[in-house]
Amino acid sequence: MSISQQELQLAARNHGMPLEALRWPVTPVGLHYLLIHYDIPAVDEAAWRLRVGGRVRRELSLSLAELRERPAETRAVTMECAGNGRARLEPHVVSQPWLLEAVGTAEWTGVPVRALLAEAGAAEDAPEVLFTGLDRGVEGGAEQAYQRSLPQEEAAAGPLLAYAVNGVPLPPQHGFPLRLIVPGWYGMTSVKWLARIDVLDEPFAGYQQSVGYRFRASEDDPGTPVTRMLPRSLMVPPGVPEFMSRARHVAAGPCELEGRAWSGWGPIEAVEVSADGGASWAPAVLGAAPPAGAWRGWSFAWEAVPGEHELCCRARDAAGNRQPVQADWNLGGYANTSVQRVPVTVA
Amino acid sequence: MSISQQELQLAARNHGMPLEALRWPVTPVGLHYLLIHYDIPAVDEAAWRLRVGGRVRRELSLSLAELRERPAETRAVTMECAGNGRARLEPHVVSQPWLLEAVGTAEWTGVPVRALLAEAGAAEDAPEVLFTGLDRGVEGGAEQAYQRSLPQEEAAAGPLLAYAVNGVPLPPQHGFPLRLIVPGWYGMTSVKWLARIDVLDEPFAGYQQSVGYRFRASEDDPGTPVTRMLPRSLMVPPGVPEFMSRARHVAAGPCELEGRAWSGWGPIEAVEVSADGGASWAPAVLGAAPPAGAWRGWSFAWEAVPGEHELCCRARDAAGNRQPVQADWNLGGYANTSVQRVPVTVA
Repeated sequence: MSISQQELQLAARNHGMPLEALRWPVTPVGLHYLLIHYDIPAVDEAAWRLRVGGRVRRELSLSLAELRERPAETRAVTMECAGNGRARLEPHVVSQPWLLEAVGTAEWTGVPVRALLAEAGAAEDAPEVLFTGLDRGVEGGAEQAYQRSLPQEEAAAGPLLAYAVNGVPLPPQHGFPLRLIVPGWYGMTSVKWLARIDVLDEPFAGYQQSVGYRFRASEDDPGTPVTRMLPRSLMVPPGVPEFMSRARHVAAGPCELEGRAWSGWGPIEAVEVSADGGASWAPAVLGAAPPAGAWRGWSFAWEAVPGEHELCCRARDAAGNRQPVQADWNLGGYANTSVQRVPVTVA
Repeated sequence: MSISQQELQLAARNHGMPLEALRWPVTPVGLHYLLIHYDIPAVDEAAWRLRVGGRVRRELSLSLAELRERPAETRAVTMECAGNGRARLEPHVVSQPWLLEAVGTAEWTGVPVRALLAEAGAAEDAPEVLFTGLDRGVEGGAEQAYQRSLPQEEAAAGPLLAYAVNGVPLPPQHGFPLRLIVPGWYGMTSVKWLARIDVLDEPFAGYQQSVGYRFRASEDDPGTPVTRMLPRSLMVPPGVPEFMSRARHVAAGPCELEGRAWSGWGPIEAVEVSADGGASWAPAVLGAAPPAGAWRGWSFAWEAVPGEHELCCRARDAAGNRQPVQADWNLGGYANTSVQRVPVTVA
């Protein structure tokens, strides 16, 4: 596997979460993953308004102060990039070359989407709600704003319009002054730098839904949409790393492995650990049940004996989804939840 | 140029500053570059102490609360990784593959190193002061803590022991609870997760100074140490990007270019801009003189005419250092300050 200059340009500006940060149930600001499709826009808070329109009885135009006056909710949400794991696929898929670091959990505070849809009087029979960001770029040969829609029933369920993260105002890279947060879905759905919400008569057919973010087997395959996060478990790599290779060195003796697991399809029911590259598996101990939408901690008491080992972990959710040893390849390199493999040297 | 799996592992956990973030004179937390040599350590603030020892009249052991009680300074400091630009070198140098994003400016608050050296009664004839972090890893075949020294006169000049950044407590990735900040020097000097300060009788000969961070022409060359930042100027890439290629599209007409320039050797005296790939240069307008140690803003009124262009910028400091069109190659890939090149399509 090798990465081109073009892919490196993406890797050099997007941010992974170093996996030792799995130790925090809420990821500190600055360690959460970041995927910025175009550029971070400069937003003048004084001039900014959120506009709500389309099939509504009354259009809304709200300042940040007006949004802050409304009843707020705070939710811990685990968010993962749909491309997490892409660089581990063969054949190689060209795009942001994530290994396993494109995840994080934050506490987002804001106004439920359902409250604004109700306030605007959204037509109940309108199938979708479209979210438009201020970030602009070129994809598929056309300049465009970043846009994604949700079925109205999904938009009116859990999603938040967040203006704070971990108790502080959104920093620019997380969508200042306002972003969508869609618990359970891959991160492309949680539109940043929100400018507009439009209630739609027809399903949205823009680039990020009709071309991007689809599971496609080939160029000829129209594919199916990428939506909720499939289950994944990750561990904090134990011991200490070599700087250059990141190879892990662990002292012989008891070694407490720890990690977190999540799924957008239901609560995590089980995590299993293998210390022999997947030949045999044993159950991890799950931590306390997290709030819906947040990852669940786990631990595993491993007796590290001298030699070379490959540690793995895998998760299963309450909906019956199991993390595969080897996920299916797809053209966009989405949702590669193949189990994590951490080679370690014990001495 | 292509990047290996090993280098991608580094790129996936270290963070660049997307260049549009040059628009902020103080980089928001979460956008500043991060180079984490080993792992981010977990630090228990209650148990943590900073120990000051070696050739001192009285050893110190200070809690974070005790450090916070001492007179504090706040300084805006531009920090750049010594490896910034490495991935632009030919022949290719294997290590963290930075393009141009390994920079940021933050406002650091803490206790001047000179105050603690005075309090401990450091021997005036001791040549160096050693800073030891809590982060551990393997380099050169040996497990070690991250350590760097400074000449005592440098340590007692500008450096701070910082416990806050941009007005908030240090987040884990920036060295919680305490880090060194050495204005003007490349970032490897600003040891994070500080545990000890030792006043030394002899120059420190540890890995990060005798092997790493040296300008070497070949494996046989002992080289010279990497110290202060050479001048560099970067611009905010104008217009909008294509997602995948990051190619820039600019509308024809007046286009205000903006960027920032810095040097660890003296104030920035001039920035020049080229719109023809370096064939001709014109002076940029410099912004207000910044505090010592922080980057200086600049702007340039460019008339964008339809066609393909390559925008470049370069800086000169008051010490007479000029940013080269093509920097000299070295074995570690340090301080590649070759001018930035931004291809743009104007239509």
